[in-house]
Amino acid sequence: MQAIHNYLDNNNLQTPCLVMDMDIVRNKYKEMSQTYKNVKIFYAVKANPEIEIIKTLHEMGSCFDVASIGEIDRVLDLGIPAEKLSYGNTIKKENEIAQAYKKGIKLYAFDSLEELEKIARNAPNSDVFCRLLVNCNGAQWPLSRKFGCESHYAVDLMLKAKELGLNPVGISLHIGSQQTNMQTWKEAMKYVRLTLDLIKEKGISLKIINLGGGMCSQYENPILSTQEYGKIVMDMAHNIFADTDIEFFIEPGRALVADAGIIETEVILTSYKTGQIHEPVRWVYIDCGILNGLFEALGEAIRYRFDWENKECETEPAILAGPSCDSMDIMYEKNPIQLPKNLKSGDKLRILSSGAYTTSYASIWFNGFEPIKTYIINKYI
Amino acid sequence: MQAIHNYLDNNNLQTPCLVMDMDIVRNKYKEMSQTYKNVKIFYAVKANPEIEIIKTLHEMGSCFDVASIGEIDRVLDLGIPAEKLSYGNTIKKENEIAQAYKKGIKLYAFDSLEELEKIARNAPNSDVFCRLLVNCNGAQWPLSRKFGCESHYAVDLMLKAKELGLNPVGISLHIGSQQTNMQTWKEAMKYVRLTLDLIKEKGISLKIINLGGGMCSQYENPILSTQEYGKIVMDMAHNIFADTDIEFFIEPGRALVADAGIIETEVILTSYKTGQIHEPVRWVYIDCGILNGLFEALGEAIRYRFDWENKECETEPAILAGPSCDSMDIMYEKNPIQLPKNLKSGDKLRILSSGAYTTSYASIWFNGFEPIKTYIINKYI
Repeated sequence: MQAIHNYLDNNNLQTPCLVMDMDIVRNKYKEMSQTYKNVKIFYAVKANPEIEIIKTLHEMGSCFDVASIGEIDRVLDLGIPAEKLSYGNTIKKENEIAQAYKKGIKLYAFDSLEELEKIARNAPNSDVFCRLLVNCNGAQWPLSRKFGCESHYAVDLMLKAKELGLNPVGISLHIGSQQTNMQTWKEAMKYVRLTLDLIKEKGISLKIINLGGGMCSQYENPILSTQEYGKIVMDMAHNIFADTDIEFFIEPGRALVADAGIIETEVILTSYKTGQIHEPVRWVYIDCGILNGLFEALGEAIRYRFDWENKECETEPAILAGPSCDSMDIMYEKNPIQLPKNLKSGDKLRILSSGAYTTSYASIWFNGFEPIKTYIINKYI
Repeated sequence: MQAIHNYLDNNNLQTPCLVMDMDIVRNKYKEMSQTYKNVKIFYAVKANPEIEIIKTLHEMGSCFDVASIGEIDRVLDLGIPAEKLSYGNTIKKENEIAQAYKKGIKLYAFDSLEELEKIARNAPNSDVFCRLLVNCNGAQWPLSRKFGCESHYAVDLMLKAKELGLNPVGISLHIGSQQTNMQTWKEAMKYVRLTLDLIKEKGISLKIINLGGGMCSQYENPILSTQEYGKIVMDMAHNIFADTDIEFFIEPGRALVADAGIIETEVILTSYKTGQIHEPVRWVYIDCGILNGLFEALGEAIRYRFDWENKECETEPAILAGPSCDSMDIMYEKNPIQLPKNLKSGDKLRILSSGAYTTSYASIWFNGFEPIKTYIINKYI
């Protein structure tokens, strides 16, 4: 992280901005590939679709999980072969599947009959994953029932896939982003195993389990290291699937890039609603908010760590809000954060581990604010 | 609205897209200026910053409430005079105030001492509004304590404004967007009156009350007409401020443009998690979601009306979700909406009254999706 701090110290960049260090991305990838041995890594491009990140991870040997034709084109345009891509979104337009097929994509996810039929019509003979709906208790980014289907339906769909001329290769799951509860992993894997066995009874031997993402980045609360986390996940996987010759995929997004980025933001205003300096609710407004960078602070889900220059100054609680005229553009109110007492407009704050889900999420021009700009540090260029 | 439907029928536009009819905007403005007699109307540009809308409203005589230098430039670049603008965001960077001042902006809002000092340093002699923190019960877009200060503090700040060489001209408030509870208006106006009197006791006679926005557009629930709503608000205002010669401003955003727009979206997928056609939870995924157009459906706050071609088909409940791989990209789940039973991928849906807070809110490239495109119908061009 020191390289990013130095870069910010030496360049007077207009805020808000995100600075990403490719060395950290490389190290994260290396750690991950050493920890998840013999596991194919697909970078979830949606976490940060910056071209330098895609290039860097490609050089490290990564494959790519893509969500749309836009992401597919961005990856392929860099000369990355189509067989390194997995079209992991279970919600695809018919013509997007057709386009992807023409571009050489051979691997598709689905979780419903209609999607399966669309894939069969537009990407014949392709490999397909069925996404299971698993419990996500413990994930810090809100969970939902949006993706995946239930076990017995997955069995029916895999048979249907074969009938439709597709190649059912595996089951995918997503345990929820920033998943901190390892017991949730265990339950999910047991559920996958059960489903795998049910499918095998019907005569289909799947080859791959795509474990998805969920690996953590360093926000407010302590987390397991990449190695500790990966060891637990892989020990579970090897144990639960011990008597099979199943291959594993993972799709880290956040875990590869969040810790490689720092957002610099400027304090626009500090205020007290009643004018009493020592009332408990100090408001601090910064130039980066829910609509231009910190979308994942919505509902106070992701709690970033903050850094500032004058470490000697005492801190006190602050409600943190964004720059827009929108009343919901507030990051932390229920649980205020500690910020220096003497903070005033014009001061800078740094938001650590903010390299994931910050830039492409930003609104295009809400309130007349430009999207957050990214700067890349890449020693090897 | 028929002109928009015709336009959509006759042009096979790529979805998702928003079509806006300037005739409806003109009519809304006319209705509003007839209802809010002798009231200066400032269009809240953030609701939809499309250039044609700004031009159209300028031709109708509107002033403009702007939130940033970006919005200021957009309005001024159309040749609209700076005195027609109010810089209504209470959170402004020091250099943004300086820029606005250089560009000729004379009217600024504030709600804290620090902001007041910034305005005094960078926009000397300007007119200033103090924004009061009022109760917003009944507003459909979530309320917060983000903006405004309490009454007694407003008094202190107005005195301070004078001391700093500024011209304290009025009090502003915002009753909450899509405010459906008229009692809330009454309480807020009484609170403003109380504050006005306290300030007068200190020797400062304010000239203007900026009533802000809150006027409604036609979403799922029935609303009062522009005339009915305006009559209630203005009767209250004239009653509560009867013995004063106060002038009123309003800042409608949503109320001028929401009903003038229709989004067309395509169904990408319909599915059932367990494969049972008659299970209660049918999921319908469309190509427009929280991150690319329907941000205000967040928390199911704004409930849009939907329209479709085959009116004969029976309807049944559907959970409505967006196209992205994000598990929070779900519009209506707690309270599903009624959609045709036979809906399938490729079918079109029209989202009525979706001309406000849909385009500029959209994310820049999340999941590789392009922001929603706007088409303008303007008979007079």
